[in-house]
Amino acid sequence: MASEIINPRQEALAADGPDPAFALHRGGKMAVAATVPLRDTADLSLAYTPGVAKVCSAIAEQPELVHDYTWKSQTVAVVTDGSAVLGLGDIGPEASLPVMEGKAILFKQFGGVDAVPIALDARDPDDIVETVVRLAPSFGGINLEDIAAPRCFEIERRLQERLDIPVFHDDQHGTAVVTLAALRNAARLTGRDLAELRAVISGAGAAGMAIAKILRGAGVGEVTVCDRGGVLSRKRTDLNAAKRELAELTDTTGRSGTLADAMAGADVFIGVSGGTVPEETVARMAPGAFVFAMANPDPEVHPEVAARHAAVVATGRSDFPNQINNVLAFPGIFAGALQVRAPRISEGMKLAAAEALAGVVADELSPSLVIPSPFDARVAPAVSAAVARAARAEGIARR
Amino acid sequence: MASEIINPRQEALAADGPDPAFALHRGGKMAVAATVPLRDTADLSLAYTPGVAKVCSAIAEQPELVHDYTWKSQTVAVVTDGSAVLGLGDIGPEASLPVMEGKAILFKQFGGVDAVPIALDARDPDDIVETVVRLAPSFGGINLEDIAAPRCFEIERRLQERLDIPVFHDDQHGTAVVTLAALRNAARLTGRDLAELRAVISGAGAAGMAIAKILRGAGVGEVTVCDRGGVLSRKRTDLNAAKRELAELTDTTGRSGTLADAMAGADVFIGVSGGTVPEETVARMAPGAFVFAMANPDPEVHPEVAARHAAVVATGRSDFPNQINNVLAFPGIFAGALQVRAPRISEGMKLAAAEALAGVVADELSPSLVIPSPFDARVAPAVSAAVARAARAEGIARR
Repeated sequence: MASEIINPRQEALAADGPDPAFALHRGGKMAVAATVPLRDTADLSLAYTPGVAKVCSAIAEQPELVHDYTWKSQTVAVVTDGSAVLGLGDIGPEASLPVMEGKAILFKQFGGVDAVPIALDARDPDDIVETVVRLAPSFGGINLEDIAAPRCFEIERRLQERLDIPVFHDDQHGTAVVTLAALRNAARLTGRDLAELRAVISGAGAAGMAIAKILRGAGVGEVTVCDRGGVLSRKRTDLNAAKRELAELTDTTGRSGTLADAMAGADVFIGVSGGTVPEETVARMAPGAFVFAMANPDPEVHPEVAARHAAVVATGRSDFPNQINNVLAFPGIFAGALQVRAPRISEGMKLAAAEALAGVVADELSPSLVIPSPFDARVAPAVSAAVARAARAEGIARR
Repeated sequence: MASEIINPRQEALAADGPDPAFALHRGGKMAVAATVPLRDTADLSLAYTPGVAKVCSAIAEQPELVHDYTWKSQTVAVVTDGSAVLGLGDIGPEASLPVMEGKAILFKQFGGVDAVPIALDARDPDDIVETVVRLAPSFGGINLEDIAAPRCFEIERRLQERLDIPVFHDDQHGTAVVTLAALRNAARLTGRDLAELRAVISGAGAAGMAIAKILRGAGVGEVTVCDRGGVLSRKRTDLNAAKRELAELTDTTGRSGTLADAMAGADVFIGVSGGTVPEETVARMAPGAFVFAMANPDPEVHPEVAARHAAVVATGRSDFPNQINNVLAFPGIFAGALQVRAPRISEGMKLAAAEALAGVVADELSPSLVIPSPFDARVAPAVSAAVARAARAEGIARR
């Protein structure tokens, strides 16, 4: 009614400067909208008092009806503490909001999922866990975002233990699902089996840890993870709890040494570190190697350099082929999980998502197409259907 | 893109039964929407990575830019613990969600304010305060809703002390503002001054307390508040801290006794109790009395009965004249406060809102029109402008 007069978004302001990103962000990137009419007293008496009281009473009697008669079941909270935002690091909750809004509108655009940015003024894992548990009645799922490692692992684990809605740290699992999908297709393209591949991951933060776990879960022959101190081996005495656990999982051969040592003869390089890898190190990989140099904005090795030595090259950037972009995973994964009201997103659901994502371009594979474009309209429906199917197969679907 | 395939809202379900409120509530009443394009890689690189990083960095350097480049400044959290929902009482957070969604879409429809339902699984005031403080970076204001008295008073006070955004318990202040507006116009219509009126309020919960305070602040001659034990007088020994404080404010004459005792000869009756008032008690009020019987769905006295004895009658219902409806206040109050980035909603801003709301129909007054219709499009702009002006006059506007 009066929104055109008083909504500050409408004000034309000229302080944005020449960078188009600022003009685009003016007033934010999202809004809420009513999906029911509010034109007259009759509308109001259905959508608000007195009509709403009957709906409230019905939910009070039969709590599962909250999924049918509110937006809960199609709505995800995008939760951060602002401690590890993009490549910017610890910039705090307010400064992280543009990323959380961006994530929220990607949820909607690509998965039909409503999402709300929740940037928390909290750092202690206890505080974050308690806060999200208290918020949870309003949401059908929790997408954790840009929370620093190793705190993010504990927060995700504790939240999922306490809540019966999916809790999903996208920096871990979204990246892992898309990486596995690209790897599946690269192997398919070059006629190899995952079990015969030796993979090296540079970076033992949130993404590196999750990628290592999903590759092991998918049956990749050997997975070696490196941090700044080199290979995560059982012999290392400088590892935190999360990295020790990962060394237990991945140190299957006693391998040790530097990243360059590990990459010599390896079939797969996965960079999620932000470091750099010299050309000669890539050159020493096995013939027909796959190089996924996913650091943003600067890949660990320039994709044109990598292509001199590798059979398949992928990056995190949209201006090169094979972009490993989380938007290929999280909208469909949550859409599928919400659709069947799964209480969590299981390992099987993630593996199913990766397989479905890979399958979208399985008939069109080439070295420059092992992963679909984010704008391929087949992606979210394929991922969502596979995730829902996997949840049903595991018996955790609730409808 | 894929939303038509996987959005559960789209599913046609037939379990809603004959009551139209259930069919209307199917899938909830609201959604989020992107306000920027996401059609191609160029769009994505502005709204998300890499373009968003520059906006984040700018906010990290200049925190106040969060108001310009995110939706924070136009977005309100509608926060409840589900402990005092409508007339239903303590039905818990999930069952309260339909009301919070309703409130959220009223914010949007009538004030152009984006609002997000946050129903908390928390009861302890400490927990609620800590949770909302942690959430606050994402929001431009906090609308507290349907939290039981006396807990609501402490929660609102402590939150406003800790936050530099408006915290507003609508059950208190929204009701109080609309009530004062109706009273102003009733007095104007009958040629009386607020200072000569003696008012009796039945109900010492959230609404009753706030109405008593705003009437005192507006200069009403005498204000008497009654709970189930009768008049709140300084002599009562059974009062909790909030009621004792109110007795200090309102017991200016040593009046005591029952509600009926207090109403004898009174000029104004304001019912926010849910109790009943017999016709003979209304008949004993002063000539030309005003009866605002606002309990929902059953007014303390039927408006047709009250009209036999009173000059002006109002209720909380839409099917009688003069509906005291909070939607006349909260959208414009928040829109005005957000527009000037006021850190709180002061008493002066509330009084200004009431005066502006009364002013909308000042030239059309009649016994059946002392307060505008919720669908009068002049309301929110008038309230919003008055609130913004009051904030500027008090020197608490930040733009």
